[in-house]
Amino acid sequence: MTNTPKGTLYGIGLGPGDPELMTVKARRVLAASRTIAYFRKRGRVGHARAIVEGLLAAGAAEIALEYPVTTEAPVDSPSYVDAIRAFYATSAEGLATRLDAGHDIALLCEGDPFFYGSFLHMYDRLKGAFRVEVVPGITGMSGCWTAACAPITYGDDVLTILPGTLSESALAEKLAATDAAVIMKVGRNLDKVRAALATAGRLDEAIYVERGTMAGERVLPLATLDHAGAPYFSIILLPGGRGRRIAP
Amino acid sequence: MTNTPKGTLYGIGLGPGDPELMTVKARRVLAASRTIAYFRKRGRVGHARAIVEGLLAAGAAEIALEYPVTTEAPVDSPSYVDAIRAFYATSAEGLATRLDAGHDIALLCEGDPFFYGSFLHMYDRLKGAFRVEVVPGITGMSGCWTAACAPITYGDDVLTILPGTLSESALAEKLAATDAAVIMKVGRNLDKVRAALATAGRLDEAIYVERGTMAGERVLPLATLDHAGAPYFSIILLPGGRGRRIAP
Repeated sequence: MTNTPKGTLYGIGLGPGDPELMTVKARRVLAASRTIAYFRKRGRVGHARAIVEGLLAAGAAEIALEYPVTTEAPVDSPSYVDAIRAFYATSAEGLATRLDAGHDIALLCEGDPFFYGSFLHMYDRLKGAFRVEVVPGITGMSGCWTAACAPITYGDDVLTILPGTLSESALAEKLAATDAAVIMKVGRNLDKVRAALATAGRLDEAIYVERGTMAGERVLPLATLDHAGAPYFSIILLPGGRGRRIAP
Repeated sequence: MTNTPKGTLYGIGLGPGDPELMTVKARRVLAASRTIAYFRKRGRVGHARAIVEGLLAAGAAEIALEYPVTTEAPVDSPSYVDAIRAFYATSAEGLATRLDAGHDIALLCEGDPFFYGSFLHMYDRLKGAFRVEVVPGITGMSGCWTAACAPITYGDDVLTILPGTLSESALAEKLAATDAAVIMKVGRNLDKVRAALATAGRLDEAIYVERGTMAGERVLPLATLDHAGAPYFSIILLPGGRGRRIAP
């Protein structure tokens, strides 16, 4: 009997969206991968898959892991949590079957694999049984502050990264206590985030970035944004500079 | 009379240290640059310059901007602040002379140009007069959490980035109020940072990373590190996971 060595799971950071902002290492691993996998909404090409178009090995097998919910359900509802937990479990089992058979898999990750995101659900379920190698990527927020020409931290600045899902009072308290901030997951939380910034007295400093480094990029002062909702790929920046020790 | 167009200043993010973790765009811009510039301590090759060894155009001109202080002086002393401010002013004037003459300059930046770092001192002084283009890079902290196999944020985690230069009480207060944290600029602040983590009740979660992604990389629980000082390229991570909505 032969013992097939198990495959390796690669978590490949793709960066903020512009394919030229992938690392040399990510490009190398991707081009050598015989099997790639990625998350996407049902019925879509998938954002991660779109970034690597033209960069894959000819004939590479593709595993599309399709979220069971195509519109944002209330994320605290038990039915949502149950459905998504079952989806992650099934996805991990599918990947495990191929890894057990000796296939390496490159799992595409928008941004950086260890900074939020769905990859972590596979990582936590598979790291005990398989070798996992992570290739870091440029975060979406870094792509956004670069697109906005907005240095985020100077000198001794404190930077706080906040999900827009927090309560308005928690957001306001943390925004008032930091030098610089990035607010992720703005989307349907836009009005609440705006109110929290106003309460913290920092609305006028806030920059709104939509689709940073991608086609359709928009950068504008948050205060001038109309009250229509923000799409998923949007972020709010509160640039630092109060911690600047050496002013010009 | 002809009017020479002014040159462009490129801020090139080099990432955390491993040259393969540079972006494809950074490599392209660097390989095409006729003039590069970088900061370094006097008498050293310079860390940024070492990363790009073998990646520059043949015959590229090099401008080494050498810090006037080779050992860490008390950074709040007036003499330090005066010396470093004069150094940044002179450095910017030198770059401006070449940009005025129509030369593009690629200024090397460890990590990401808009996330802390000396590049910002040039950016603030030159952006009004010259075109500046920034290529984002993977931050040092991202290289460190990848090296440590430590996902830094899940789900709705709050992440706080803290300079180790803050007071012990400020550090302890912010460490107690966040899900995840990264402490930068550990170096001579190691003992203070350790005390603050203990006060916040989080010393046992802390991971110490020295020279992440570089030769001589060390990763260990902070609690097991001896009390000798930490070098400049060290960082402390407090991984998240409390904000995990979908547990396995």
